[in-house]
This record gives sequence, structure tokens and C-alpha cells, in this order.
Amino acid sequence: MTDAGGAIGVFDSGVGGLTVLRALRSVLPQERFVYLGDTARLPYGTKSAASVVRYSLQCADALVARGIRCLVVACNTASASALGALRLRYPGIPVIGVIEPGAAAAVSASRTRHIAVIGTEGTIGGGAYQAAIQRLDARVRVTAQACSLFVAVAEEGWVEGAIVEAIARRYLEPIFSGGSRGAAGGVPDTLVLGCTHFPVLAATLRAVLPGHVTLVDSAATVAAAVTRELPAAAKPPPGRGSVTWLATDGAARFARVSGIFLGESLRPEDIEVVDL
Amino acid sequence: MTDAGGAIGVFDSGVGGLTVLRALRSVLPQERFVYLGDTARLPYGTKSAASVVRYSLQCADALVARGIRCLVVACNTASASALGALRLRYPGIPVIGVIEPGAAAAVSASRTRHIAVIGTEGTIGGGAYQAAIQRLDARVRVTAQACSLFVAVAEEGWVEGAIVEAIARRYLEPIFSGGSRGAAGGVPDTLVLGCTHFPVLAATLRAVLPGHVTLVDSAATVAAAVTRELPAAAKPPPGRGSVTWLATDGAARFARVSGIFLGESLRPEDIEVVDL
Repeated sequence: MTDAGGAIGVFDSGVGGLTVLRALRSVLPQERFVYLGDTARLPYGTKSAASVVRYSLQCADALVARGIRCLVVACNTASASALGALRLRYPGIPVIGVIEPGAAAAVSASRTRHIAVIGTEGTIGGGAYQAAIQRLDARVRVTAQACSLFVAVAEEGWVEGAIVEAIARRYLEPIFSGGSRGAAGGVPDTLVLGCTHFPVLAATLRAVLPGHVTLVDSAATVAAAVTRELPAAAKPPPGRGSVTWLATDGAARFARVSGIFLGESLRPEDIEVVDL
Repeated sequence: MTDAGGAIGVFDSGVGGLTVLRALRSVLPQERFVYLGDTARLPYGTKSAASVVRYSLQCADALVARGIRCLVVACNTASASALGALRLRYPGIPVIGVIEPGAAAAVSASRTRHIAVIGTEGTIGGGAYQAAIQRLDARVRVTAQACSLFVAVAEEGWVEGAIVEAIARRYLEPIFSGGSRGAAGGVPDTLVLGCTHFPVLAATLRAVLPGHVTLVDSAATVAAAVTRELPAAAKPPPGRGSVTWLATDGAARFARVSGIFLGESLRPEDIEVVDL
């Protein structure tokens, strides 16, 4: 086991959370990170809330056992279902999910007070973004759309081109065509990417969306939230940061797909396979 | 627990195996079936072989505990990895996978001795179809292609239309355009649908394939194999057949998506959620 005392722990159901890790490393380049992808049980998006809570506690236990000082839940489905249970189990460690930062950024960005949110079936069906946004501003209307195929095209690496554009149009045109006017009278002016896979599709989404729509990238917003909440205790010594890579299954596939989401390619031997 | 003594047990990682169950019911309408979808751990297609073997043994144990007299592995990934382990654990029960019947049907159908196989990453990467076909006829050339997106579009219910046709062209045109000539000189004349999700895409695949290509549907070929191997012992009394529905998670989603693959809609309360 690698010594990860004082590191920032990040877990996801698989590789999508690498977009969050990438954003974290760019704002906190000296930190040590431990990334755990629960690839044996992905995707969380179609699982029940009870299963997602159980898996999330197991992921957190494995990271806490390595001495992390901050826990980032880089999975929207887990953030939607398990944040309360995680904070209850680990009251001494800041636990930061991806939903609240994204909701806050969206409310700040929207002028029409009509926000669109896209995510997996589990995230959208659970209504966590809708609730988080309306807790911040009850006057905001939220239009939510599950975009299940976006995960598959992103993992296939088909992040641009005619096919992903056609899929994006099919999901998004009904929302942004003007047929979805909010109480405030406008179509949505803000789109929350409520799944960590989706930032790699941002260029395609911009190509099919009206020009005035602001994209809120949950990877970037969570990195900003971690920077604010990170405890100064056990701060890493100055120097280069590092990442310890853990996965619960399939190191070869994790390494291969990582390039799409992380922007750099891992080798299978860089990844330690752990059994939760 | 429903009494399922003498029934035919069928398991899959999720809902795709319902295409196999549908084919089984059409040729064996008086039989009782127990269908188990391991929805808590789907998809198997991206998991390691060791995990798939472990999950498959757990599924089989649950079905054998209900007194089944025949076990159908209605999942290509599990058939590729776990058939040997299952036959070793249950020597008294016929264990029928989906790969061998599909391979045999393809070898019978092909005149050019060049067969194409499509499936999930796990099935194709494992090479089980390629091996099964070449065990039957070593002169056959096999061209294999993972088509990961087909599972996602099928589960989304996008089984026809421009998007799924574009995806199918992207995967299949390189194989059937003439750039993939076999040792025997011809392009493939036979396409094995090596994933139980794919039969619902058959009409779209026919639309994009050259007219002379024979589709081999693993659901239909496994139903024929079960009819041959089914032990006469504990034969059901004449009358209407039945199905007991089991899933390891998410009865609501299972019921909703079942309509696409089964051709009839289940209600969530029809499905018993079991913990393996």
C-alpha cells in the first residue's frame, strides 16, 4: 500500500471522475491525490440509491484507511445519494460532492432563472440537482434531462463528429428550442453538465446549443469548492504533487479509457487493483 | 420464494437476456422459467473475467437453490468466461451458453468462410466466438468488432432511426465494405449478433448491411440448443408456462426497460429483488 497520509481522496464509479481529478490537479498542483475508480461496480447511474450508498461507504472506507484529509465524491450519482451518509461516518473530514458546487455556479450564472441540467438516469431521476438549485433560489425553474448515451459515446472516445452531435441534438433541442419556456418566460440560459463524463463533450454541446447558453462544468466547480474547504492541517510539503491510482477491476481498460478523461494516458501497471 | 422446482433457469447481467427468454418461451411455451437479471452488477461486458466468473457462480447458486433442471447462461460475457466453472460446479444440470450455438449456426450459414462477430468489449476482447468458430472449422476467418454503443442505444429504446443507423454504419462499414477480405477472398457473408441486446437492432442492421449477409441471432440459436438438451426428467405438466422474475437491483428500471427486449411490459411488483 502506498503511503497517502494527508492526501486528497477522490472516488468515482469509474473513469468519469478523472475530469474532476484533472481540474483538481490544475488548481492544486502540489497536492497528493488518491483516486479510486469503482470499476467493478460501474455504472452507479442505473443502480438503486441503497446500493449506491453502500458502495460509496466502502470506497470512502478504503480511502480513509490511507489517511486522506479531504474526500471528494467525484460522481454525481454518489453525491446525490450518499453525501449525508458519508458526512455522518466521517465527521472529521471535509466531504465534498459535485452537486452543490454545480448548483451554486448555475444559480450565479443564470439571468433568465431557467436552468437546464443533464445527467445519468439515476442523477436526474433522483432530483438532487433540481432540489439543490431550488434550495439556493426557489424562483428558479429547472428543466432536467437524462442523457444516458453521452456516457457511452464519451467512453468510446466519440467526443466530436456527426454521431455525437446528432445524439446531443436529440436530447437538447426540445429543451432549448423555445418549447420549454420557464415561469420567468425564457428558455434556459444555463446548462449544468451533471455527470463527470460530460465535460469531454463540451465542444460538441457548445456547437449544438444557442450561443448565449452558459455551460457549468461540475469538474471545474468542485475544484474551486475543494480549494475553499481544504483543511490546512497536514498540508503537503512544497514540491510536485502525485496521484496514487486505485481501481476495483480491469486495470487495462481503466488505463486505456483514462486518456479520454484525464488528458494523459496511464499504463495498466500504474493502477493498483483493490478489493473492497 | 416462488416454487420453481423443475423450471429452466436463465440468468443475464441485466435485461439483454430477455431476448433469449423470449425466444425460449416461443419454442417451449409450456415450460416454467426463472429469470435472474444481475442488475446490481451490470454490465458484465467491461468487467474482468475473474469477476464475471464469481458473479456467474452466485447467479447459478441462486437459481439452483430454486430447483431448476437446466441452466441457460443468457449473457455472452458470462458464457465466454464462466461456462467451464459452472459445468464443474453443477455436473448434474445441463448448462447452456449462448456462444457455442451461435458459433455453430454461423459456421453452417457461411459459404465464403468469412464470418463477422459483434459484441461487447469483454466478449470480443476475450476471443470466445473466434475460438468457438475456429474449433468447428479452422479454415474460417473471423472478423470481430466490439460495438459498445449498441447496448446503450438498445437500452435507450433508440432501436431504429438515423442515429442508430449512423452508429451501425460506423462500426460495420469497415468490415463489409470489401476492405476486409478473408483468406478465402470474400468479405464476410454472415454476422453473429454476439450480445443479447443486439437482436432488437436487427432491422437497423439489415438496413445498413449488404443484402446477402445472414444475421445469426444468438437468442434464437440458444433456444434451439435448449430444446435439444433439455432433460425429460421433471418435465412440467401440460398447461401454460410461467416466468418467475428476479433481479438484484432496481425493479422499476428493469420493468421499464423490459418492454424493449421482452416484447411485453412488466410491472415493478412482478419482480422480486434478491441479494446474492
